[in-house]
Amino acid sequence: MHTIDQYRTLFIAHLNDAIKEQEPKNLYEPIAYILQLGGKRLRPILTLMAADTFGADYRKALDAALTVEVFHNFSLVHDDIMDDAPLRRGKQTVHEKWDVNTGILSGDAMLIEAYRCLETYDGNVFKKLVKLFSKTAMQVCEGQQYDVDFETRDDVSITEYLKMIEYKTAVLVAASMKMGAIIAETTEENQNLIYDFGRNLGIAFQLQDDYLDAFGDPKTFGKQVGGDIIENKKTYLFLRAYGDANKEERDSLEQLFSIQPNNTSDKIASVKSIYQDTKADVLTKQAIEDYTNRAFTVLDTLTIHADKKEMLKQFGIGLMNREV
Amino acid sequence: MHTIDQYRTLFIAHLNDAIKEQEPKNLYEPIAYILQLGGKRLRPILTLMAADTFGADYRKALDAALTVEVFHNFSLVHDDIMDDAPLRRGKQTVHEKWDVNTGILSGDAMLIEAYRCLETYDGNVFKKLVKLFSKTAMQVCEGQQYDVDFETRDDVSITEYLKMIEYKTAVLVAASMKMGAIIAETTEENQNLIYDFGRNLGIAFQLQDDYLDAFGDPKTFGKQVGGDIIENKKTYLFLRAYGDANKEERDSLEQLFSIQPNNTSDKIASVKSIYQDTKADVLTKQAIEDYTNRAFTVLDTLTIHADKKEMLKQFGIGLMNREV
Repeated sequence: MHTIDQYRTLFIAHLNDAIKEQEPKNLYEPIAYILQLGGKRLRPILTLMAADTFGADYRKALDAALTVEVFHNFSLVHDDIMDDAPLRRGKQTVHEKWDVNTGILSGDAMLIEAYRCLETYDGNVFKKLVKLFSKTAMQVCEGQQYDVDFETRDDVSITEYLKMIEYKTAVLVAASMKMGAIIAETTEENQNLIYDFGRNLGIAFQLQDDYLDAFGDPKTFGKQVGGDIIENKKTYLFLRAYGDANKEERDSLEQLFSIQPNNTSDKIASVKSIYQDTKADVLTKQAIEDYTNRAFTVLDTLTIHADKKEMLKQFGIGLMNREV
Repeated sequence: MHTIDQYRTLFIAHLNDAIKEQEPKNLYEPIAYILQLGGKRLRPILTLMAADTFGADYRKALDAALTVEVFHNFSLVHDDIMDDAPLRRGKQTVHEKWDVNTGILSGDAMLIEAYRCLETYDGNVFKKLVKLFSKTAMQVCEGQQYDVDFETRDDVSITEYLKMIEYKTAVLVAASMKMGAIIAETTEENQNLIYDFGRNLGIAFQLQDDYLDAFGDPKTFGKQVGGDIIENKKTYLFLRAYGDANKEERDSLEQLFSIQPNNTSDKIASVKSIYQDTKADVLTKQAIEDYTNRAFTVLDTLTIHADKKEMLKQFGIGLMNREV
């Protein structure tokens, strides 16, 4: 059993080992670039922790951890093209540093590479991992499509929004953990429970992202605070505020989310004040706690050693209270 | 044993069965659209033929045939974005009919779907198919990258060009056949021989594409004759002509491949006349025959029924003499 930081270090060493100089350079250099740009490496850490939780040596799960991290970064490369994003983790995105075509093709190669990382597994474990990975990858694409569709709709319900973030974000967190459980060859019941733990945690994680984007501390938050508001993104905060707003607040929100002013600070301040007046900030915090608690309820039903339960719980609490 | 046309009909029925209306529509409709746009369906037919050749019921190979066809169409969707191509099989490309982001995301989903089609196979066959498919898919990406790289290089050798088309086109033809052989659970030697047969045939196929683009009959050729010349594409014809050209012809070729005139017919005529003067047309035809014969030599070493050998041979001759 290791600490989260130890798992991160062990995973990064494995990742760096896996990155080789290969030809054609214009295909493989962008892959090495994005994979070494950093990030919290939460998903692969969860894979290692889950394997450990169910009694397997974490080293057996390193390749599956690579699969989820390579896939996650593939989705970032293609999403950044679709969002026309110039920066990722404070550095140039792949399509900015190279070009859009390079981003498309290197992304494709990463998706294939994510599958290839699973080739070290055999028999039933191999097939279970590939099936789970494919299903998850497809749901992530569906989630991304819903996200795109929602941009041009003004009648998105909270339920639809939650399904979107479940697909776009939570199922990969869930699958990351289930892969570790599959590798440990624990019972199917345990595999499904840890998936459910991860899924609830993943939803809480994304809601926390929405919350921090508006109410994070600019000193600790990595990105520009208010980014979602500037881009008129209808996050959980927006949907909650809009749902509970009075006529006047609703009109204000609609007006504010239809403009793209050069000076954004007034707009951000106005939107945040409506979020607070409607208690959307409090309700979002409550939803985060709610999903985290659902994850913990699932955790309680797992028959694993108390130490491991505690570690997973601390991980969840850490996510809920994170400021980055 | 069926005829090629029968295999095509059987495959298309299976393909149409597999296409379902799914949500989100903006993700799945473009997939159904491109898959039903037609095409020769050569690769899936080869998978069915190979399974049959080695004694399996062709129906066992239908899902693997779907994998190669879905993957092939995925690569068309993403390549068409990269080439900014408005038309595919005479109809609007996906990114033209929808938009670039839809093309990227639906393409990603197709790549995942290609893997999912293999889930009906089990055990060792499943793993062999997935490994072969991943390796092939990665080579196709590498081939596409070499193709892009070659656009801005003026020192591409014939050897490099042949490697590019081997990766971009031939390995998928080869893998299509090997998948059928894997499903039939024939010897590894047979699997490798049929792969080699397909690889040589695939190279011949692409060289024939290069040839037809310049010297095809406008009446029977589906695409615009001279398209490669208009786009200054350095095909096998160009490399052969340039390699054997005298100083004057070389200068002409360089000049002609640096311009984008509005009226393209003079340019096409001039380039074709240099291709003929340098005997590049004859040499290309010879190379096509050479690779087809290499495929036939491999075929001779296979211990399969004479009928099946003859059918594969007729398929090869058909490809070499095709005008579409």
